[in-house]
This record gives sequence, structure tokens and C-alpha cells, in this order.
Amino acid sequence: MPKKAIVLYSGGLDSTTCMAIARAEGFKPYAISFSYGQRHSVELDLAKANASAMGAEEHLVVDFDYRKIGGSALTGDIAVPKDGVGNDIPVTYVPARNTVFLSFALGWGEVIGAHDIFIGVNALDYSGYPDCRPEYIAAFEKMANLATRAGVEGTGRFLIHTPLIDLTKAEIIRKGLSLGVNYARTHSCYDPAPDGAACGLCDSCRLRLKGFAEAGLQDPASYMKR
Amino acid sequence: MPKKAIVLYSGGLDSTTCMAIARAEGFKPYAISFSYGQRHSVELDLAKANASAMGAEEHLVVDFDYRKIGGSALTGDIAVPKDGVGNDIPVTYVPARNTVFLSFALGWGEVIGAHDIFIGVNALDYSGYPDCRPEYIAAFEKMANLATRAGVEGTGRFLIHTPLIDLTKAEIIRKGLSLGVNYARTHSCYDPAPDGAACGLCDSCRLRLKGFAEAGLQDPASYMKR
Repeated sequence: MPKKAIVLYSGGLDSTTCMAIARAEGFKPYAISFSYGQRHSVELDLAKANASAMGAEEHLVVDFDYRKIGGSALTGDIAVPKDGVGNDIPVTYVPARNTVFLSFALGWGEVIGAHDIFIGVNALDYSGYPDCRPEYIAAFEKMANLATRAGVEGTGRFLIHTPLIDLTKAEIIRKGLSLGVNYARTHSCYDPAPDGAACGLCDSCRLRLKGFAEAGLQDPASYMKR
Repeated sequence: MPKKAIVLYSGGLDSTTCMAIARAEGFKPYAISFSYGQRHSVELDLAKANASAMGAEEHLVVDFDYRKIGGSALTGDIAVPKDGVGNDIPVTYVPARNTVFLSFALGWGEVIGAHDIFIGVNALDYSGYPDCRPEYIAAFEKMANLATRAGVEGTGRFLIHTPLIDLTKAEIIRKGLSLGVNYARTHSCYDPAPDGAACGLCDSCRLRLKGFAEAGLQDPASYMKR
């Protein structure tokens, strides 16, 4: 029987590729998404519509309002920057977001007996978020095994899988295509139009477009007309 | 100016004592509570009513439905055991709960510039939860400093304070009383009556009553008549 895995699934390019990889590695993916007050809820709508087609056995959506925490362009009143990817941690960084997401994944994993957790973080073509780095992931994994029944009772060991961490965006796209991912059904923009069209200018759009260009491909997502 | 500290505050005996200790150590407490679908919501109501009187500068209540995750007597349909404190991890253990709570605390702390986080875990008179042990707390702290901007930019270091971890329940109560805590306004029961009266039989009530008895004191909380 295939092993269950939790997959953090936003409906974006990276997490959708990550789900395809989990499946290709023989896991049964249990997708978890978060409705946390993000301004780009188009992504979540796509995640809900496509989870099953993308191979999820189940799809859990956890709701909470991270706007109460604030501190980010993705949840607050700060504008999303559109002038290119810089070297500092940008205002789109959401404080402790991956830690909150992975914690819920850990709880669900413990309940359903899934000790493998996939997260599509990437430390190469990325925005410089601290919680996308390998040393952070290793520390979370260590903590996870001390936090839980499985770790104490020796009935399993949690593994955080980051299959995209060392890949360029172009490599991620090629990998996903080889596994049958339909990128027309993924969304990455931080600040989409009401009809869901991507802005083409935020860090996330720029990294995505650069990835498709480097892979010699056309991005099938829809972008705002200019 | 006093430093800000985040205090995980459930409205129970331990977390209320913890807030008093944070204040006594010179911190300005920012209390965070969680409405997560717990069956003992009396505790949360008390937390909301008393946070300010107990010394909190602000009180943030984060809502999410952990019943979707399940796996615990505190959130699910499993009955709360009333036959005494055992040696195994009991069914009242909520998978990854402290990790989820601390993660939200970390996010809020990063936003408001509070690098000190207080949590009233106790590894002596406790129910045997894996996420109350010192080795877990140390691993969370390490992860927290890799997860965040402050850790990367060197602008602060998160510290998880666990002032109750080595104390007996009686010592916690004596400490709280010396700091002016009014325990009549705290609640600990896992399965209270609709009017808020504590059951007196769940692990949490047993540990609390034992604590007051060992301290040679009467618990001022209200218990169900038998």
C-alpha cells in the first residue's frame, strides 16, 4: 500500500510540481492549503478546484486570519513591490508563515499517520525568505520529531521533503512537465487582477516568467494586458 | 522602556501564572490565545475577560478549527478520561498543538518586535505531552531563529521562556500567589459543565487540585456538585 504524504499545496507552480513529485515517488498525497487572509486568493480557488485532478487523495483547507498578525504585503496594507527581485528579505515575506503551515501539516500528519511532509520551498530562484532555507527545514524536522507522539514512542520519524530546494525555476518546470503537470491550472501572482490574471511584475511573476523563458517555453497562465 | 514579550495565555492556571512571571521579570506582556474548537471554551471566555486585569498590554485571539485535524479528546468526539493521570501520552494530547500555538506567537512576535515568548509548559506535574518537554522547547527555539528575519539579519534572537517547566503544581501556585494572581479567575478543566464548573476528575483538574492540596490551600475555582 502506498505511504501517505502530506503536501503543502497552494495551487502555485512550485507546490503543484511538488505534489506531482510526491506521487511519482510512490506516495499518496494528502494536500493541505491555507486560507489565511492572503490577497492572492485566486491561487486558493485554483487549489480547491484542482487538488483532485492534481492527484490529491484528500484536500484539507485550514482557515485563519493572518491579517491579525500583519507585517506583510501579502496580508496587510503594504503594496506588493513590482520593481524586480532584490537581495534583501522583501515586504512580501510573511512572518513565520511556513512555520505555521508546516505545524498544521505536522498535526494532520500525526493524526492520519503520514510521516512524510512535502513542501515546495526553493532556495535558488526565490525571494530570499528565511523560512525557505535548508537549515531552517532541517531545524523544523528535528523539532517535529520531538514535538510528537511518533517521535517519543518511536513509532515513526517525520521527514520534511523539499524536492525543489536546489532546482532553478526552469528545472522545476521541466520536471513538472515530465510528470504531466498542467501549468495553465497553476497560479503564482502575489497581486492578481479580480479576474485572476497575473500582474507579471511582482517577484513571484518575474521568477515564474524567467523560469519559463529559461526552459524555452511559453507560460500558459493568463497575464494582464498592458 | 520595558521589553515586549509574547505570552501564550489560555486563561488556565499555568499560563496565567506565566503572565504574572513575565510581568515580574520586567516584560510588557502581549497575550495570545487560541479559539481552535476546544471543548473547554470556558477557559477562553475567562482569558478574554481577564487578560487586561492579569496584566496584558494587548490580547490577540487567533481562530482556527483544529477539529478538522482531529485526533484528540479535546477537539474531537473522544471522551475525556476521568480515571486518573496515567503514564502514557493520553487521548487529551492534541497533535502538534503547542507547535501551532508557538508558531503563531513567533509570527506575532516578529511583527511587533517581541523576541521573548513565554509558555507555561510544565514537565513535572503534567500529562506526559511530548510538546511540553525541555528538549522540544530547545528545538523550537533553534528553529525559530532560523525561520525569521531577526535570525537572518542578526537583529534579535528569539528566546522561549518556560518558567514553570521544573516546578511542581504546588510551587506554581505559591509563585503565582506571591505575584498577586487571583486563581478564582483561572480555569483548567478539560470538560467543564455548561455553567463553567470544573469536573474535578479529568487530568487537568486532578493535577490542579493536587497542587492546591500540596500547597495547603483551597482551590477557589468552582467545581461541579456531586
